[in-house]
Parts: sequence; structure tokens; C-alpha cells
Amino acid sequence: MSKGTVVLAYSGGLDTSCILVWLKEQGYDVITFLANVGQDEDFKAAKDKAETLGAKKVFIEDVRAEFVEDFIWPALQANAIYEDRYLLGTAIARPCIARKLVEIARREGAQFISHGATGKGNDQIRFELSCYALYPEVKVPPWSMDANLMHISYESGILENPKQHAPADLYMMTKNPEDSPNSADVLEIEFKNGVPIKVVDVKQGTSKSSPLDIFSYLNLIGGNHGVGRIDIVENRFIGMKSRGIYETPGGTILLKAHLDIETFTMDKEVRRIKQGLGIKFSELVYNGFWYSPECEFVRHCINKSQENVEGKVQLSIFKGQVYILGRESPKSLYNEELVSMDVQGDYDPCDASGFIRINAVRLASPQPAQSSLSMELF
Amino acid sequence: MSKGTVVLAYSGGLDTSCILVWLKEQGYDVITFLANVGQDEDFKAAKDKAETLGAKKVFIEDVRAEFVEDFIWPALQANAIYEDRYLLGTAIARPCIARKLVEIARREGAQFISHGATGKGNDQIRFELSCYALYPEVKVPPWSMDANLMHISYESGILENPKQHAPADLYMMTKNPEDSPNSADVLEIEFKNGVPIKVVDVKQGTSKSSPLDIFSYLNLIGGNHGVGRIDIVENRFIGMKSRGIYETPGGTILLKAHLDIETFTMDKEVRRIKQGLGIKFSELVYNGFWYSPECEFVRHCINKSQENVEGKVQLSIFKGQVYILGRESPKSLYNEELVSMDVQGDYDPCDASGFIRINAVRLASPQPAQSSLSMELF
Amino acid sequence: MSKGTVVLAYSGGLDTSCILVWLKEQGYDVITFLANVGQDEDFKAAKDKAETLGAKKVFIEDVRAEFVEDFIWPALQANAIYEDRYLLGTAIARPCIARKLVEIARREGAQFISHGATGKGNDQIRFELSCYALYPEVKVPPWSMDANLMHISYESGILENPKQHAPADLYMMTKNPEDSPNSADVLEIEFKNGVPIKVVDVKQGTSKSSPLDIFSYLNLIGGNHGVGRIDIVENRFIGMKSRGIYETPGGTILLKAHLDIETFTMDKEVRRIKQGLGIKFSELVYNGFWYSPECEFVRHCINKSQENVEGKVQLSIFKGQVYILGRESPKSLYNEELVSMDVQGDYDPCDASGFIRINAVRLASPQPAQSSLSMELF
Amino acid sequence: MSKGTVVLAYSGGLDTSCILVWLKEQGYDVITFLANVGQDEDFKAAKDKAETLGAKKVFIEDVRAEFVEDFIWPALQANAIYEDRYLLGTAIARPCIARKLVEIARREGAQFISHGATGKGNDQIRFELSCYALYPEVKVPPWSMDANLMHISYESGILENPKQHAPADLYMMTKNPEDSPNSADVLEIEFKNGVPIKVVDVKQGTSKSSPLDIFSYLNLIGGNHGVGRIDIVENRFIGMKSRGIYETPGGTILLKAHLDIETFTMDKEVRRIKQGLGIKFSELVYNGFWYSPECEFVRHCINKSQENVEGKVQLSIFKGQVYILGRESPKSLYNEELVSMDVQGDYDPCDASGFIRINAVRLASPQPAQSSLSMELF
Repeated sequence: MSKGTVVLAYSGGLDTSCILVWLKEQGYDVITFLANVGQDEDFKAAKDKAETLGAKKVFIEDVRAEFVEDFIWPALQANAIYEDRYLLGTAIARPCIARKLVEIARREGAQFISHGATGKGNDQIRFELSCYALYPEVKVPPWSMDANLMHISYESGILENPKQHAPADLYMMTKNPEDSPNSADVLEIEFKNGVPIKVVDVKQGTSKSSPLDIFSYLNLIGGNHGVGRIDIVENRFIGMKSRGIYETPGGTILLKAHLDIETFTMDKEVRRIKQGLGIKFSELVYNGFWYSPECEFVRHCINKSQENVEGKVQLSIFKGQVYILGRESPKSLYNEELVSMDVQGDYDPCDASGFIRINAVRLASPQPAQSSLSMELF
Repeated sequence: MSKGTVVLAYSGGLDTSCILVWLKEQGYDVITFLANVGQDEDFKAAKDKAETLGAKKVFIEDVRAEFVEDFIWPALQANAIYEDRYLLGTAIARPCIARKLVEIARREGAQFISHGATGKGNDQIRFELSCYALYPEVKVPPWSMDANLMHISYESGILENPKQHAPADLYMMTKNPEDSPNSADVLEIEFKNGVPIKVVDVKQGTSKSSPLDIFSYLNLIGGNHGVGRIDIVENRFIGMKSRGIYETPGGTILLKAHLDIETFTMDKEVRRIKQGLGIKFSELVYNGFWYSPECEFVRHCINKSQENVEGKVQLSIFKGQVYILGRESPKSLYNEELVSMDVQGDYDPCDASGFIRINAVRLASPQPAQSSLSMELF
Repeated sequence: MSKGTVVLAYSGGLDTSCILVWLKEQGYDVITFLANVGQDEDFKAAKDKAETLGAKKVFIEDVRAEFVEDFIWPALQANAIYEDRYLLGTAIARPCIARKLVEIARREGAQFISHGATGKGNDQIRFELSCYALYPEVKVPPWSMDANLMHISYESGILENPKQHAPADLYMMTKNPEDSPNSADVLEIEFKNGVPIKVVDVKQGTSKSSPLDIFSYLNLIGGNHGVGRIDIVENRFIGMKSRGIYETPGGTILLKAHLDIETFTMDKEVRRIKQGLGIKFSELVYNGFWYSPECEFVRHCINKSQENVEGKVQLSIFKGQVYILGRESPKSLYNEELVSMDVQGDYDPCDASGFIRINAVRLASPQPAQSSLSMELF
Repeated sequence: MSKGTVVLAYSGGLDTSCILVWLKEQGYDVITFLANVGQDEDFKAAKDKAETLGAKKVFIEDVRAEFVEDFIWPALQANAIYEDRYLLGTAIARPCIARKLVEIARREGAQFISHGATGKGNDQIRFELSCYALYPEVKVPPWSMDANLMHISYESGILENPKQHAPADLYMMTKNPEDSPNSADVLEIEFKNGVPIKVVDVKQGTSKSSPLDIFSYLNLIGGNHGVGRIDIVENRFIGMKSRGIYETPGGTILLKAHLDIETFTMDKEVRRIKQGLGIKFSELVYNGFWYSPECEFVRHCINKSQENVEGKVQLSIFKGQVYILGRESPKSLYNEELVSMDVQGDYDPCDASGFIRINAVRLASPQPAQSSLSMELF
């Protein structure tokens, strides 16, 4: 008799294949789920393998569009970066996959969920926190020793020495900038509510306007120019440091474009508060708390801040870099006349002097500034 | 009879030359001061010009070394960036120049200080706040209409339209990445207390070790590879937005290297707090409050956080980009054994499960997680 | 011929009466506006006086209900306290009065607004920032020397010495606790969306349910028991310190009740973020930025956080103190079963141990904890 | 043969007595340690009991003076309050006891530490995090089911219903304000570096000057007047809410006095930053992270901020309340002349107008303020 049904987040690799077999041996019915979040994978082969290994049902779903719209876009609005550098590509995929995993488990009446993430990484935490939040009565079994074996790879071994340089052939999504095109591509990205609604390739004349198309196209262009490679040591949720190498071509382009249009259209002080909320958002997402009251609250606040973040940013992409060229917006708070050095307008220079002297009252203590006397002299 | 003595921050340009003449006409004795903060200028010619125009005394001082050590290094320790992008190159030069200006005014018994910064920019604020803080009884006269004329240039006119692309020949310190070398330079930067103490050019075999030499060399290398160009719209202290184009080759390299060695050697939670202090520091400096009790307090705290920030970072510089290659440190908090997937060590995977379930207690409300039951099953 | 029309925020006192006369003498038409924000005043007498002094029109409006609903309630939701103690009673009245003042000025076609607040206080700033935000093209003339005379009082003179104790007969709204009743009053305050919707006097059996009635009743009860007196030195926006004595009976009761029901019904981490926003809100309001993009943004976020802040708080009021007795809520996040020491329930003590050991991984560096070994022993 | 030596934090109560017996039965040698942190206890009887039950050694130590100086004083400097109300009395005692516990364990060569704190409270976490931080290789066994029984008490049972009022006879340290003296006591507390160095009872003429004497005397006076009772629902580290009733007479008096002298002597903007650090400190201490790099860093920063926090505060204590009467300090930043309405001095009212208009530039968008025109009119 079956001990119950497990939905297994299946990757098609050695690791989760081992878990599948082991769960069967322990007496469970196993349903595998493989999410297409844009990874380069032979989904047909993975399906066949799972069936061969005894999966009762095999689900493969393309969640790319919802990944872009429901997870990447909010992160972009937040300018989400962990520890000043990491764009959280893995951390935001986990709640997307977990949501679908829970949906299947509920629909199929499964009492258990399993995955291949190891106990030392953040991914176990992200997966399990998401599952507990969405399906509190589910059981997520502790990972087994075996699962450790799956994540070992030649690359990992070398990279664990933080001094060791990454091998040149490590990267999959991005060209080596040394081999990338010798002339720049120029793009115009249009935003509304802080998310891109259109990308125009200025030289080619082509344009993309669905979220998935926009993101895929930026990955293509960014990847071709070697954009978005970083090598960092980061702090995991559980406190230990780990070395990570990431490549995020499309996300890097969008982050720079969003930063530009945001500062162009958002009030200075609103942005200061929003900047703090964005840092908080990044930590929450990194640590696995996408589905939490506080992350929902922060997303609501950030979303509110994006109401007027719209307009077009022009940028060039070249040899690993993204250069902002110009921007325009119907919601611009930039006042060309006020900023001009030619036109005096309504701005009274005496006001600036008063502003400065008042700000200096506190600085000059304990001898108070006698600045007002200078008024008589000039 | 003289109305008093003014120390004028003299640039040698049309603007401050006009102020010099005007102050003389108003009946003041004028002492000019020209600080060498590394700008490209004919100091001899400027001296001659000031004397010809009637300056009573002419001072020119090389403050480059103190600029690097007393102002750039603290900003680097803070990872100081304004609004996520601007490295504050102008903002930290002002308090350096103002300090010397006040020193001369006090020594020469001058009652007045004057400068050519205009009323709409941040620089008037930075100059005057610094002067009032250091020399409360000094008088800084309001800027005149004429001063406006000095800052108008062909470039400014065009750039005021935020949509207009910057002309290719605008940049002085950095090569266009399209024309920069086709092979990377590799550097090793060594830090102690969060500031660089040595730079080695790995290919050339050369090395630099005084602060000024280190910074100058990084400017040279970074400039040659087109590193550190940005085009942003920023929020001035007084609320209006302005478009700025900056090039910061050496500073950009150091920021990336410092971020790397800092995360490698600093405790995760200390860094989170320090990150907030760094954002505060950046705002204070941008707004002109270098000489304020709060900025002094923040610098003290940040300096404390840098005690263990030491080690070597290897990086390559290529086509406008800075790539981190590896790092090592005697103060590393990176635990290679703990992080390894091979070695189990003292890290108990059950602990991770407990950690996750406790974190999920709050998320699963109002239906409390029945996760403990799963213990029996697996 | 008239130089234009001024709407004067008129208090009926010597100060604004002087301004009225002076404005007339300068050739302006003057409209006076006197807002009833709950102060103890003979409004009929003030009206007669203004007319006698030559006001062209005299407006008196009761803005008490909108003061409570539009200004006090948002401050309550924020738990707004400036510098840990001041409940911002003055700071939130200013934007309420200024809104009405601007409404009248626009309706009557007045080009000028005037008030009697002095240049050293925060009130000038609050008034003028509110007016400029709501009516950018209005002109607010600089205050005159005469206006200074209005705020001088025997009390002020004494209190300016921060060491001097306040005289016993200073207070108007609150009884001296030494003379207050010798038995407590017990109240039950019901909240919804973070604002009170009902107050029941448990002993008397009476209840109040409109915002104005609720606040007035709490002032009455609090005042009778001497609640809400503070003597503080505070930091004004412009940097100088000033000594202030405040009495806020109803506000103090509500703050304590709101803190209680909020923590009872709001998620821990949401509340942490909201606490930071509340501190920001307090600073903005204190400094006069009620009508600013950032204050509007913060109010929106805080309001969102209050969605589930509902329930009843019981408290006793006695001799200057407010004691929380108990609370209940349909939205309570308090889990009586989980918290009980009797019932084990679904909470696994092993999880807590794992949670602790994972948290300690970082603390034990550089000698990693060998805590997992202890598992075998017990 | 012994399985090893355990140092047990012994309370003399039923709970830890059970643990002592159980540990003996399991084959361990048990050393008991009872810390005198000022609780009301018969230490002689506890010693006898431990010996009777088979403790190999019995240590009792008076740690009151170091508790006040090393733990209460830093919390006071931070104005440490958890969730706006709780003064952290328990949370700061744990690291004090744990430090001594570890000292004994190291000295006696014990491999194990045990305590009676239960798995649902914060105290288990605080104890164990402190022990792991100070003695990484120690083993702290998971608590047993039995330990649960110890903490059940009649009071707890009732209080777990958050609506239930606390019984009148619950409190031990503080008199019911209804029964407290009908006349106030007046105290003068002198601070240096942000900690009290002297208390004078103004009516009695007595004074205290050692840390322990000061704190004990304030507990006596505060307790006699019923100061410091609170009834709150708080958020535990592990996410669940719990209802707590606390009485903190001396701590409440000191918090109010410290807030007063701090604002009197500390720069406004330094205090804003320090306020954020104080909130962080409170969370860290509440959660058990006293011995952590981040808490050490925050303590260092807070301590730096207290350099000029000195002077005398006069206050009256009456019927549960603490009233500030006045303050004086050689380091006062309060400028009596500047604040006075009588004296104009060096403060130019025009500066305030300029200050306000500059602050309003941003608020009036998109129609820029034409405020400068008003200059001509008045």
C-alpha cells in the first residue's frame, strides 16, 4: 500500500532522478513536475526518463510568461539587488516554481512535496518557505545525503576556492566580451508603471512588446554583447559566505534602464523611501520570503511608487556594458527651464543663500554664524 | 580704504576672473586661491592672470594627496554612491578645497570668502556649508548674476535636454570603449582597513603604493579602457532634477574591488547595517554636509566597520568594464570546508529543516503548519 | 488703489490684530480667517474685533471634524511621535488650517496669504510649505518684526531656561494628577482599519462613535485624570533646539491603545517595516511636509498596513497614566494554543534547536560550531 | 563511567531540579550555577537543594554589579525598547548569565551546558546563541518534554487569554498606583557618557553613585510609586505572538531621564541616525544576538554617540508616572539666546523665508512657485 503521494520538483538530472527512485522504494507514489522557466533543456527526454523511472504522472509546464510578469517585473520595479550586486535570478524563480508545485499537489491530492535542493544552499529555504506559505499542511521531507551528490560538478569544485579565476568556458548565456561584436546595438525601452512595455532595436527597426518577448530579446542582445557577468562572494541566509558566478544579460540592461527612467519621473524623497523598501525587498526575496505578509506589503508599496514611472530610455549595448544615451517622459519631473543657466525665471538666488545659512545654523555651534551681517555688505 | 579682504576660490577661467575684478571695484582686497585637485590646468598661466587682474596675493596649492587620503578613501570605505549611480567626485572635492580656503582666510585675516559656484547647483551649498562649519564667523557673499555666465558652455546647453545624446568628444579622462585596447589589463589591488595600499599591474609587473600613486594609476588604466562613464538625471539638494554626465575611471575600479573584499571579510549583519550608513553618508556628502556632526559620526562608524577589510582582489579591465576574477584574505570569513558540497562536516542538515520550519510558523497563519508530523514519516 | 487681497490666518490676539492693521496701512484688502480647531476661544468676539479693525470679510469655520478624521487619524495609524516623545499636536493642525486658508484664498481671488507665526519656529515653515504646495502661485510675505511680539508671554520667558520647572498653573487641558480623581475610569476602545470607531465608558455605560465625539470624550477623560503632559527639549527643523511643554490627553490614550491593537493584529515583519515608515512620517509632519509626494506615499503605505488593525482594547485611566488591561480581535494573529505551555500541538521542539544552531553558524566563527555532535548524545 | 560534565543554569525551582535529577540518571556529572541578578530568592536554600539532589559542585555568584554596568547601561544608552514598549529586562539578563555559565564551563572543563528555558520562548534562543557565540565547541542539549512542566503556573494559564485582565496581586516589584504615596518624590539624575553617575533624592537629601546603588535606589523609588507596569502582546523571534506583563520601575525612570538629557546634548541629525541604531540594537538583544559581530558594532557606534551626553535631569515620580521638570548640562547644544523671541541676534528672518521657498521648489511642481516676486511687495 502506498504511503502517500509526493510531487517531486524534477530536473531530469541525476540528482532528482535518484530521489524519484528512492521515494518509490520507500513506498510513495511519485508525480514529477518540471517547470520550463527558460532553461536550456530537452523536456521530451526528461519526460521519458521520469516515466521510465516509475513516475505515476509527469507534468511539464511552460511558466516563462508568468515568471517574467509576476516575478521579474516586481523585482525590476524594486531595482532589486542583493548585497549591491546580485540580481536575484535564482531567488525569484523559486517562488514561481513552488507556486505551480503547490497547485499540482493540491489538485492531485498529494500530501508531500520534494525537491533536490541541498541543505547548505538558500534554495532549500526558498522552496520550503514558499511551499509552507502556500500549502501549510503539506509535508516537505528533509533532504537526503544522496541529494548532495547531484549538485557536485567540476565547476563547483574549482570555484569553491574564492581566489581561483572562473574558467573562460563557464558561461552559457553570454559571449565573452573579447569575442562580442565590435559595434554597439542601440535600443529604446519604453516603460509604464515601472515595467517595460516595448523594446525597439533602433538599428534593426524591430520591436517587441509582450513581457516574455521583451525579456527574451534583451537576453539575446545582452548575451551577444557579453552583458551581466559577475563573480561575487555573497552571504547566504544561514550566515555562511559562498562564492557565486552569475550572468544576467537581460536583467542587467533592464535594471539600468529602470534606474534611469525612475529617477527621471519619481520625486526625490519618494525615491529615497522607495530605495529603502527595495533593499528590504531584495533581502526578503533572497532569503525565500516572497510569500510572506511583509513581502506582499513591500510589493504593494513599491508598486504604488511606480505609478508615474513611464517614458522611453535610449541605450547602447557594447562589450559587456550598457550605456544610457538619453530619456524622455510625459511624466518627467525634470524642469528644463528651471535647470537652465541662461534663464533666471522665478528662482531667486537670495533664497538659496537663506537656505544655506539656515542649514548652517546647526553646523556652526557653539559659535553661532553671524552670516546675516554680510547682507549689508553686498 | 579697503572694505576688507576676500579669499576667492579662483579657477583661472572667465567666471572667477570677472568676480575678481568686480570685488576690486567694490573696494575689497582680493587674495586668490587655486587648488590643484588633479584637474588639467596651466597653473602658471592662472597665477599670472590673477596677478594681472589685481589680486593682492595668489596662492596655488597641490592638495591631491590629501584629497585622495582624507576624502576619496572614506568615500570608498562607504561604497558611497548617490542615487545608486553617481560616485560623488565633485561632492567630495568641495570640502577639501573649502578646508584649504578657510585655512588661508584665517591665516591672512580675511573676513570674506567668495567662489564662482552658481545658485542653482549643489556646489554653492557644498562650498558655503563647509565654510560656515569650519569658519562660522566668515561671510560668504551671495553670488552675482555675472557668475551665471561662467558656467554656460556649448556642451551644457545641449545636455540640458535630457533626451539629447552626449557628443562623442565630450569626455576628457576616458577613451571611448570603441577605441580602447582590444586586450584586457589585469590588476591586483591590496586593501587594509578598507582602503587600497597597493596596486600591482599583473601583466606589466609594475606596482604603486602611495595613495596618490594608486589612484592616479587606476585613473590611467581605467581611462585607457573607457571605464566609469555614466549619464544620469539626479536630484539636487534643493529639489530640482538635473542631468549630469560623469566619468570616474579609478573610482569605479576601486568601488568594485572594495565591494568584493568587503563582502569577503565582513560579517553579513554588520554589512547590512553598514550599507545603511553608507547610503546616509552618500546623501550627506552630496548635500554638502561633510563637516557636520552626523557625517563625522557616520565616518567614525564606517571606519570601525572596516577594521578587517583587508586582502587582495584580482580584476581585469576591458572595454569599459571591470571584472572581478578572484580574491584572498587573511581575514576571510569564507569557510571553504563548510561551503563545500562534498564534505558534510559539522553542519547538520536536520538543523536546516528546523530553521526553515520555525521561519515558516509565521507564514502559514492562520492555519498553523503541521510540519512536525512529517518527522515521523521520513 | 488696493495693492491686492490678503487672506490672514487670524487668531483674535494682539499679534494678528497688529498684522491686520499694518496690512491695511500698506494698502491691502484683508480677509481674515479663523479656524476652530478646538481651541478655547470666544469666536464671536474675535469676529467683532476683526471687523472693527477693518477686515473686508471675516470667515470663521469649524474644522474640528475634518481635523480629527483627515489629520489626527492618519497620525494615529502611524503611531506618530517626534523624537520618541512629542505627539505632533501642533504640526498636524497647520496643514489642516492651511488647506482651508488656501481654499478661501482661491475662492476669493486673493493673491496673498499671511499668518502670525514667527521666523524662528517650525510653524512658519509648516504654514508656508503647505500654502506653496497647495497654491504654488500664492505669495506668503515674510513675517514682520511686530509678529515677534505676539508669541512673547510670561510663560515663554521662564520656560526658555531649560532648567526652570514649569509653573503648576500652566496647563489648560489637563488636571494636575495630584488633584485628579482617586479612582480609575475604564474604557473600551474599538478600532477598525487602525482608527477608533467607538469608545465605551465601561463604568458609566456611555459610548461615543463619531470621530469628533470619540476624540473629544477621550480629551475629557484624559484631561480629568491628568494624562499626556510632557516637558521636552526638541530639535526644530532649522536645527536649533527649543524647549516645549505639551499636554495631549486624548492623543496619549489613543496612541497606547493603537499600539496595543496593532501589535495584536499585525504581522511582526510588516510592523517592523511600518515602524520605520511611521518614524519617517513623524519627521515629515514635524518639518511641515504634510502636502508632499513623499508624505502622501508614506500615508498610502501606512494605510495599507492598517487593513487588519481592528478589535477592542480595554484600558484604565488613572493619575496621569494609561494602563492596558486586555484586548480581543476577530483579526487576531495571537494563537492561544500555540503559545500555551500545556499543549504541545504541532510545534516541534527539535525545530527550535535547529533554528538556533543555524543562527549560531555565523556567530561561532572562526571556530565552526560542532553542535551537531550533541544530537547523538541526548 | 560519566558521560561528561554538564553545567546547569539552576534556578532552585521544580523545573531545573527535575533536569538535575534527569541528567544524573542519564550518567552525567552535574555542576549547578545560580546567578544572583537581583531576583528575590533564598540562595542558601537553593544551594542545599542542589547538593541534596546530587550536584557535584554548586556555584552561586552575585553578578548584579556587572549586570548593571555591562548590560543595563548599554541598553540605556540605546534607549532600547522592543516594539515601542518593552524595556528588554529579560533579554539583557540572559547574555549576562550565559557569560558566567560559559566561564564556569570552560574553567571546570565541562563539555555541556543545560538550562530550563522552554522551546517556545525566546529564552532558549538567547541562552543558546550566547553560549554558542562564547564557547563554540560546547554542546547545549535540546530541552526535554519535562522542562515544559516547570514553566506552567496559575498566572500563566490565565494570562494566555489576551482579553483577560491581569490579577491585581500579580506584581512583585511595584505597588499598585492606587496604593502608592499621595505626594511625589523628586530626583536629580546626573549623566556622563550617557549613563547615570549619580542620583540625588532632592527631598531626602540622600544620594547614590555606584551603578548598582543607583539602579537599586531607582527600583525602590519607582516601585514605591508604581512606575513601569506594562501589559503587551509582543512578537517572539520565532514569529508567534505572546502576551507579556512586565514591571520595570528603575529602568522606566532612567529611560525617560536619558531621552531628555540625550536630546538636550546631542546633535539633531546624529540622534536620528542613532535612533535607527537603537531600534536595531533592541531587536538584536530581544532575539538573543548580544554576542554577535553586528551587536558589538552597534554598541560601539552607540557608545560613540554618547560622548557628550552629560548633565543633570530633575524629575518627579508620582502615581506610576515620571515627569521631567528641568535639565542642565555643560555640553548643552541649547542656545537660549538664539531661541528667545525677544532677542533678534544674528538670525536673519529673510534666511528662513529663503529656506522655506527652496524647500517648496519640489512641492509646487509642475507649476513652479513664483514666490520670489513677493520680495518686492513687502
